[in-house]
Amino acid sequence: MGATSTLPFLFLLFLSLLLIFFTASRYPSQLSLNCSQYPSWCISKHRIQAKETTLVVETQQEGHRHLDHLTETPQHPLDPLTLQEINKVRTILSSYLPFTSSFPSINTVSLHEPDKSLVWNWNKGDPLLPRQAFVIAYLDHKSYVLVVDLGSSQVVSHVLNPYSGFPILITEDMESAVKIPFKDARFNKSIMDRGVKLSDVICGPLAAGWYGPNEEGRRLVKVECFSNQGTVNFYMRPIEGLIVTVDVDKKEVVHFVDIGHGIPIADSTNTDYRYSAQNNNPLNMNPINPISMEQPKGQSFKVDGHMVKWANWEFHLKPHPRAGVVISQAMVRDSESGKLRRVMYRGFPSELFVPYMDSSEGWYFKTYMDAGDIAWRHSESSFSNMEIREARPKITLVVRMAASVGNYDYIIDWEFQMDGLIRVKVTLSGMLMVKGTHNQNLDQAQDGQNMSGTLVSENLIGVVHDHFIIFHLDMDIDGSDNSFVNVHLKKQEASPGESPRKSYLKVQREVAKTEKDAQIKFKLYDPSEYHVVNPNKKSRVGNPVGYKVVPGGNAASLLDLHDPPQIRGAFTNNQIWVTSYNRSEEWAGGLLVYQGKGEDTLAVWSERDRQIENKDIVLWYTLGFHHIPCQEDFPIMPSVSSSFDLKPVNFFESNPILRVAPNVQEDL
Amino acid sequence: MGATSTLPFLFLLFLSLLLIFFTASRYPSQLSLNCSQYPSWCISKHRIQAKETTLVVETQQEGHRHLDHLTETPQHPLDPLTLQEINKVRTILSSYLPFTSSFPSINTVSLHEPDKSLVWNWNKGDPLLPRQAFVIAYLDHKSYVLVVDLGSSQVVSHVLNPYSGFPILITEDMESAVKIPFKDARFNKSIMDRGVKLSDVICGPLAAGWYGPNEEGRRLVKVECFSNQGTVNFYMRPIEGLIVTVDVDKKEVVHFVDIGHGIPIADSTNTDYRYSAQNNNPLNMNPINPISMEQPKGQSFKVDGHMVKWANWEFHLKPHPRAGVVISQAMVRDSESGKLRRVMYRGFPSELFVPYMDSSEGWYFKTYMDAGDIAWRHSESSFSNMEIREARPKITLVVRMAASVGNYDYIIDWEFQMDGLIRVKVTLSGMLMVKGTHNQNLDQAQDGQNMSGTLVSENLIGVVHDHFIIFHLDMDIDGSDNSFVNVHLKKQEASPGESPRKSYLKVQREVAKTEKDAQIKFKLYDPSEYHVVNPNKKSRVGNPVGYKVVPGGNAASLLDLHDPPQIRGAFTNNQIWVTSYNRSEEWAGGLLVYQGKGEDTLAVWSERDRQIENKDIVLWYTLGFHHIPCQEDFPIMPSVSSSFDLKPVNFFESNPILRVAPNVQEDL
Repeated sequence: MGATSTLPFLFLLFLSLLLIFFTASRYPSQLSLNCSQYPSWCISKHRIQAKETTLVVETQQEGHRHLDHLTETPQHPLDPLTLQEINKVRTILSSYLPFTSSFPSINTVSLHEPDKSLVWNWNKGDPLLPRQAFVIAYLDHKSYVLVVDLGSSQVVSHVLNPYSGFPILITEDMESAVKIPFKDARFNKSIMDRGVKLSDVICGPLAAGWYGPNEEGRRLVKVECFSNQGTVNFYMRPIEGLIVTVDVDKKEVVHFVDIGHGIPIADSTNTDYRYSAQNNNPLNMNPINPISMEQPKGQSFKVDGHMVKWANWEFHLKPHPRAGVVISQAMVRDSESGKLRRVMYRGFPSELFVPYMDSSEGWYFKTYMDAGDIAWRHSESSFSNMEIREARPKITLVVRMAASVGNYDYIIDWEFQMDGLIRVKVTLSGMLMVKGTHNQNLDQAQDGQNMSGTLVSENLIGVVHDHFIIFHLDMDIDGSDNSFVNVHLKKQEASPGESPRKSYLKVQREVAKTEKDAQIKFKLYDPSEYHVVNPNKKSRVGNPVGYKVVPGGNAASLLDLHDPPQIRGAFTNNQIWVTSYNRSEEWAGGLLVYQGKGEDTLAVWSERDRQIENKDIVLWYTLGFHHIPCQEDFPIMPSVSSSFDLKPVNFFESNPILRVAPNVQEDL
Repeated sequence: MGATSTLPFLFLLFLSLLLIFFTASRYPSQLSLNCSQYPSWCISKHRIQAKETTLVVETQQEGHRHLDHLTETPQHPLDPLTLQEINKVRTILSSYLPFTSSFPSINTVSLHEPDKSLVWNWNKGDPLLPRQAFVIAYLDHKSYVLVVDLGSSQVVSHVLNPYSGFPILITEDMESAVKIPFKDARFNKSIMDRGVKLSDVICGPLAAGWYGPNEEGRRLVKVECFSNQGTVNFYMRPIEGLIVTVDVDKKEVVHFVDIGHGIPIADSTNTDYRYSAQNNNPLNMNPINPISMEQPKGQSFKVDGHMVKWANWEFHLKPHPRAGVVISQAMVRDSESGKLRRVMYRGFPSELFVPYMDSSEGWYFKTYMDAGDIAWRHSESSFSNMEIREARPKITLVVRMAASVGNYDYIIDWEFQMDGLIRVKVTLSGMLMVKGTHNQNLDQAQDGQNMSGTLVSENLIGVVHDHFIIFHLDMDIDGSDNSFVNVHLKKQEASPGESPRKSYLKVQREVAKTEKDAQIKFKLYDPSEYHVVNPNKKSRVGNPVGYKVVPGGNAASLLDLHDPPQIRGAFTNNQIWVTSYNRSEEWAGGLLVYQGKGEDTLAVWSERDRQIENKDIVLWYTLGFHHIPCQEDFPIMPSVSSSFDLKPVNFFESNPILRVAPNVQEDL
């Protein structure tokens, strides 16, 4: 049994995605999905179908409780909706007035969590808190945002079209959308004129985004196509410049773009990244012998329902159809008092923003946000390989979420360390979004500077783009009322005669009074530490207990603040934000982000400039990557990572790991 | 056998430090060191003495060649001086005119490497290149910088007092220096007035630095003392404000500072960080089961003399008395051609700079540079524990160097990855430099803002400080003539009607012509990639082959550029520098840094503004940490890390690891 110690992570991963699958796709409306027909849309959620059995086998081997979703009942107020609860929601909705005649498409259904204070005060053994479901439904061009009470079987909250955007597209929307262009003679002619067999064409639905009034008021998808002739990696064979905008509801073509005639479709040679497809092993390379990791005395973590207990950490872990994985009620045990102490009420990735840097008609709209905005999925990435390259033996517990989003794979790790540190790490891999070009070689580019990226292979440009992901971090340091402190390092000139030194650094603690005080842009030459402290709780020597955010590598958005995509992705205007806790402010890009105008985003909430000193506050951290592609990214990218830490600062009276026994060879 | 897979690293670590020990301390002048008498000066070099046997045992178990230094002969032009060669150097010097009457103190002896071109052209089996030794000796207030030719037994280069600074102090200098204050009545009275028994006093020699003309022209040490009564961690019991400046050569007190009377010496309670000293285990913590890592088919790396071969990497690895570990001739094998390709001729940590941020008389001079500037050593850090927390199972080869420098431990990892990436990681741990204070609690601080740091325990301030370490990276991408390219990401406003987008990013490649073009300060909002390319070698599609520097978290020096410590530490004025290759420009803070004025530093070399386009160039990277201490750092710090990567960019024609077999469970 190798890789035993990675099983915890895999188990949590599978557990999470497995449950996502159940929470997300128990609707008749979705049971028609046919993966074999449209492999490129077999999304991670559905991919788990295949892994379900694997999971059960593995977890049984590891002695975990067999997850029987048919009989599962919630054990904790934050436990996700069970299968029976989801079925009950469907029954309630089918007799709910707007839906009696025809059942809507269900775009989201998830637990509507009880109030934070009730959850913190709930203890194991107490009666479960009332269960409610949060539902986003779509019917006859109307978006319904509903809260369904499972006890009273009533819809207790009903909001119609709250924002300009639409709910995420469901699979049928995508499936039907990509068929529409084939009804258009211009489209078929263009395909054939380019020498491509229609049977070799794979089309994908790309998000339309929002670019001003032109395309408002209707659900649109931009359909772009590829040739899969001769390769599984059709992403590397774009049919350049052929973009068909379709109305998802009317099922008609609303705009037809056909530029880039004569741009050849890149050759399929060397586009297959599967090991089986490589014609030989690396030449003359010294072989790598396998490394086995084992835990002879068994794993160190416990999973009790959705509660995870490991070393000095306890937290609630659950899947979420939009966030992927949600960490709740993270608490760390104080090694002196032996008591559990509150650190974070809730942590999850709130939003994605991936703008590509090409303004041409075929590319300008590629500024994706959110799984609700990214229509594409793929299941081709060499996943097992990735896991092994990412396994961690360092004694930490890693909660891993892996999602195939569009051509990319995002891996999000929550790494809990025994010194109280939480490392949040984002890893990117998958396929580049490439653009066709006439150029076989840089020499042929009249002006290499003018390409929107790097020539990564003959006739293919890897277009420059950014990745941003923002984390919602509802810190509750030893309680809910916290303050955000900018611990500012400033150069101090020594006064004459004070010292042989001319200058030194001085620390200035600036407590943020309102939200605008906490809109933080990092500056290497004007540095600060950023602390979330509990001003009501002091350490033995009088320091407020707290946690600090420790940034790693990062990148900022440079786009024009009035650029439509930047308006929707305005959460990237700062690296750190702190908002007053508001249970409805979860999604930094807006609840209904698809074609949204950005009126319901973090930037808008923060501009209200609410009081945040000694209040229940939420910390937001934006992690960014600039990606200038290079040939090593072809045909699939080596993974790239960045991270940030949440680190105790005067939270413990002293080094918290002195009492932990060294883990030495003799143990084994 | 647990942790098998860590043994490669440990082996290399021990090998390196073991050889450092031999190269650095075979002088009669140093054989008088008595560790038991001055435990705080038992430096990492000497600490290895204890591990030597361990090493041999372990390596024999692992089937490594037993290193017999008595019969060792060099096999490669870069191999370090052997014991016989070092003895021959001593013989040659003892009959060298200036030293015939009395033998100098030898502050440095190491291989004087042959010219780069000769080394690149040397192949295994060729006759060894001429062997020379580089020596820094000190006698009668004179510094001698010598090159000794071992073939002709001649001193072929002789330079007297080339710079203002002095060679590093040797152990006797330190040992005698700390005894001098005890001859001074004022000193002894002050100790006793403070209620400390003289027998409980441990004094350490702190570097004097350079602060203008006052203290020039003589070798000085600032002696500061501690009480070790009741604790092994005397660092936490400073005798505050008692600083005796002594002349190392005349062995006399030149300046006596006695301030801070009445500042209590912090209590010894809870200062002991050893596991054996903890009164109990963490309360109610879930036990961590051990994790075993094994390589059932054995290790994957080969060590042939000083050549290390692993996967697609080959490089020469050797210890160096000043740099610690030097990586030479790093080459990566191209998986397509099967050929070895040049990446880096030489890489090593060139300089340290650790300014503390307190301008008072007892603290201003604490602005350490370099092991040659830092007089203190300690061997108390719980080393084995650290290794385990840092072990890496991810399939990479890690070359680790660990050094106890002053109160700190520095761990430097060179991590070689199969995708051609080299990660350079610096980890800090060890003890804080703390300052005594009257305050038991923050309430008592008239103005908490005015403390030079954080109250980390009763009567102890953890003083704010920075850590900077700069790496000398002599990149030779497919040959020695390379260029440095600033791949600049700039916001481009879309012209009216060009696009529904208002803006996008555009890449501008700016080739650095001269050294000043390559003085780089990182800017989050004016970002670039930094490439070292070979303009004479293009990829299949015409991109220049190259490597890029990928920064991780970093910190910049904010000190006044004319501050004496900043003049010596001017290498921190930029995060990246590129210089024209010059074999004598190795030490960013100067060859003779002790009390140096900074006339021989990287900043001075770079100001010459030499041509660097398509030339043999050296890349320098400055890694920085701001450290605002917190209670978790008491009594010993949890380790903190940061890193940067050297990553192939259009160096390979495509993703280089496609052909590498996935390492799956079945292998085990």
